[in-house]
Amino acid sequence: MARVYNFSAGPAVLPESVLQEAANEMLDYKGTGMSVMEMSHRSAAFKGIIEEAEADLRSLMGIPENYKVLFLQGGATLEFAGIPMNLLNPENPKADYIVSGGWSKKAFKEAKLYGDIRLAASSEDENFTYVPNVDEVEFREDADYVYICENETVYGNKYHKLPNTGKVPLVADVSSCFLSEPIDVTKYGVIYGGVQKNIGPAGVVIVIVREDLIREDVLPFTPNIMRWKTQADAGSMSNTPPCYGIYICGKVFKWIKAQGGLEGMQKINQEKAAVLYDYLDSTDFYQAPVRKEDRSIMNVPFVTGNADLDAEFVAGAKARGIENIKGHRSVGGMRASIYNAMPKAGVEALVEYMKEFETSHR
Amino acid sequence: MARVYNFSAGPAVLPESVLQEAANEMLDYKGTGMSVMEMSHRSAAFKGIIEEAEADLRSLMGIPENYKVLFLQGGATLEFAGIPMNLLNPENPKADYIVSGGWSKKAFKEAKLYGDIRLAASSEDENFTYVPNVDEVEFREDADYVYICENETVYGNKYHKLPNTGKVPLVADVSSCFLSEPIDVTKYGVIYGGVQKNIGPAGVVIVIVREDLIREDVLPFTPNIMRWKTQADAGSMSNTPPCYGIYICGKVFKWIKAQGGLEGMQKINQEKAAVLYDYLDSTDFYQAPVRKEDRSIMNVPFVTGNADLDAEFVAGAKARGIENIKGHRSVGGMRASIYNAMPKAGVEALVEYMKEFETSHR
Repeated sequence: MARVYNFSAGPAVLPESVLQEAANEMLDYKGTGMSVMEMSHRSAAFKGIIEEAEADLRSLMGIPENYKVLFLQGGATLEFAGIPMNLLNPENPKADYIVSGGWSKKAFKEAKLYGDIRLAASSEDENFTYVPNVDEVEFREDADYVYICENETVYGNKYHKLPNTGKVPLVADVSSCFLSEPIDVTKYGVIYGGVQKNIGPAGVVIVIVREDLIREDVLPFTPNIMRWKTQADAGSMSNTPPCYGIYICGKVFKWIKAQGGLEGMQKINQEKAAVLYDYLDSTDFYQAPVRKEDRSIMNVPFVTGNADLDAEFVAGAKARGIENIKGHRSVGGMRASIYNAMPKAGVEALVEYMKEFETSHR
Repeated sequence: MARVYNFSAGPAVLPESVLQEAANEMLDYKGTGMSVMEMSHRSAAFKGIIEEAEADLRSLMGIPENYKVLFLQGGATLEFAGIPMNLLNPENPKADYIVSGGWSKKAFKEAKLYGDIRLAASSEDENFTYVPNVDEVEFREDADYVYICENETVYGNKYHKLPNTGKVPLVADVSSCFLSEPIDVTKYGVIYGGVQKNIGPAGVVIVIVREDLIREDVLPFTPNIMRWKTQADAGSMSNTPPCYGIYICGKVFKWIKAQGGLEGMQKINQEKAAVLYDYLDSTDFYQAPVRKEDRSIMNVPFVTGNADLDAEFVAGAKARGIENIKGHRSVGGMRASIYNAMPKAGVEALVEYMKEFETSHR
């Protein structure tokens, strides 16, 4: 078995040790005589899995007791609707959105189905190569929330400073930077993200929400299982949760702990990103379109400026076991997603190839 | 490794060969060098998986070309809202529901958020021990659809004859009888179900819908990814689908083909159910509460009529590797869910234990 270096933006690389454990436990989870896929979600074994996953996540992120942790279905995309449905005041629904890439733009568009949704700032004027200056953005004081996508997967930008929204709760989609570095949960009203980038298999979205924001009087047409109140009261089990995905997430939480928690993870991630960015900054053969101060350490787009050359780069990479390095069509060129589980050796192999390619194609 | 006989109502037993294949492929799916969990949903490998799954399901069920097959998230429970959102005419939203157990009752309650929803018939008067006589139920001719739950998991009843709804489309939740027997798809407007009973791991719901019922003018607040039009146009990939779950479903479809398709599966299921029902009918120590003509061959509730004895039965079963035999709290006693993947030997072991228990406790 030859594993490749998988730079996919999501679903994405998982720790090999996690996959190995899952394979070993596939027919018999810890002497239960069954797979986690076959387990009643009401069983003691599965309750142990979901409760341990939540406890590990709480300890990793330092989630205060007045925040609920929900493991839900539908991905971040269903929460593009779930967030306004749950947070907007039905009497006077208002929210402000900052758009810094494709995902926040989609979330903004979806929210407009549900109320008076204002575009507070956007960086679309320069194809999302930067994050709007949060010190200059004005918010409505009576907005129900302010929305950001903290790390834009496609464009590779990241908020390195959060907007100060005063008393208005900040809602952040962290799908592509989830658990990549320490976080101060108290600065947010809601932190949420799909797990299929940094945590687990597609099909689970984690919502971390401050208790006082969980409304009973949600928009009246909100499906029952999309109501955070319903799911918080039921421990995420108002209906059958995506059990197997949650089980894998739990294993990844333990793996992150073994890397030194979020501090340890951040150090590793910064080192990996530096290998790539230092090289990109040392050459003019490749260009990294995002402003230096807004760079993501998870998603790194780069281009040669020549579409044919880009295509040749991608094909050559594949031949060396460097997979899914092609950029999103909105940016073109290449994109290296270097999530938590991407080993440093993978980034080094990529940079080595980039150098050789530069030498032979300059 | 000792596998148990798992009579869970869902998530439930899966074919051992499917689990073994999944374990073998966990770190490297067919030479791709990655797990299916790590694969971009836009990759050629995953496209192959989802397209083959759909083709196999179409061939198993004989799904005509004018029906779309969607693989979605949120379970049947999210579709309790998705169905009215997608099928109701926004100008005059009307639907008729038959309630024959807990799941159709929940679906009925959820639908009432969205329009003029009428209870056409119910068997709650006798604790859902029967299915309403479909020949006597009247439907509104201008209803957008008529809704049934074809097999009620908790109560163990099943429609052995479908209501004749004329031109009004019939919508059926088949979660707990999915692929258990041949089906005439053309009799339905929509067939849907969560996969975690007969097909795969929790986190996937399959919706099979006649094309002409897919509205563009759905209820205006319908989240974008809950719109069947959106998902049909995107091949179920408007957002990241639950890839790993779909992969397991695909393996189960192939396993069912190897059992002789739905005809073969039905024969095996009838034989298994007969082992249990024949014994139940031969003794008065246990009682099966459902009317004979409405019995499910998937979920078989039975009781001794003595709660202490029931509890002793359940405990003794567990000691022999007969797991999850406890009945749902709404019925009490025991329930054996004998889905496709439950081997006949499992049912025989259960009946053997039931006989011994009867002898020692009569």
